[in-house]
Amino acid sequence: MEIDEFVSKSIGEWSSMRSGHSLAFKQFEEIISNLRINLLSKNEPEIQDFLNITGYSKDQAISPFEIEWEGESNWEETKGSQRQLRGHSLLIPIKHSNNSGIILRSKGYAEAIQAISNYEISSDGTIFFSTTYQQTIAEERIWFINKNVRCRSSVIKSINMSGILQTSFASEIRKIKQ
Amino acid sequence: MEIDEFVSKSIGEWSSMRSGHSLAFKQFEEIISNLRINLLSKNEPEIQDFLNITGYSKDQAISPFEIEWEGESNWEETKGSQRQLRGHSLLIPIKHSNNSGIILRSKGYAEAIQAISNYEISSDGTIFFSTTYQQTIAEERIWFINKNVRCRSSVIKSINMSGILQTSFASEIRKIKQ
Repeated sequence: MEIDEFVSKSIGEWSSMRSGHSLAFKQFEEIISNLRINLLSKNEPEIQDFLNITGYSKDQAISPFEIEWEGESNWEETKGSQRQLRGHSLLIPIKHSNNSGIILRSKGYAEAIQAISNYEISSDGTIFFSTTYQQTIAEERIWFINKNVRCRSSVIKSINMSGILQTSFASEIRKIKQ
Repeated sequence: MEIDEFVSKSIGEWSSMRSGHSLAFKQFEEIISNLRINLLSKNEPEIQDFLNITGYSKDQAISPFEIEWEGESNWEETKGSQRQLRGHSLLIPIKHSNNSGIILRSKGYAEAIQAISNYEISSDGTIFFSTTYQQTIAEERIWFINKNVRCRSSVIKSINMSGILQTSFASEIRKIKQ
């Protein structure tokens, strides 16, 4: 599988169940959210602007896309309020080989800042991302169970490699079955 | 990585946080448990008996081991009681090639019956199991984040392939760090 096929399989609306595990405190977090993943044209002004900022050209970009998410976490349930989660990120893949490269992200996953992820797609179709942020390193894996269900796991480590802060796992179900 | 190395890395006592996702009902389950994984000798009577039952010889067995687990689920919390989980399984790997083969299990994961899992180890060190039970097919993946933390995901499908019943994810932390 190459990155354009991975993006193409991911386009659509997804209902997500996500569990976070804080290892040090043995705490669970449960998050229910909706994701919308849209393919974008290379000619969209926001894509052009983001390429300009990052120093890449339109010719290098492959299947740029955006992710919008909106959800609720039970993290604060004990305090009588739920944590609202909402966000939007542009993602632009740049290939280095058929099954590897980088993804420019306007907003990161572990930290809400611009980030560059390395990706690699294995022979069984799992995509691996590794992203170095200011304080943390995030390692993610995404794989499809079938065309309507995908799984996503992540591990967040502190930048000094001394500890694993959190793991998480999401089951994502396509809202309109294909 | 070959199966004997995977078994060797897994030996020890682990503290596990596991989340189950019931996709149809959007229900989360949280399980806290302890696992103990012990290497066994091929000469243990229970291993010899299990090889006899399944028709394999001692020469074919590689690194037989046992898993004991004890835990609690929050599944019944709303009814005022927690579900107690406790079990024990013998596992005997039989190689077909350097990175694939089968594992004889005295007790399965998705259903508590004797089972045979196919396994394959990918180049990044993830081990994949696929087990067909009477009603269900279970697909599991296990990978090490470092020598003291391993992750385990599973997908349980109904045997007629019409639906995914549950996904789950476990973060397992070695109790005595190496």
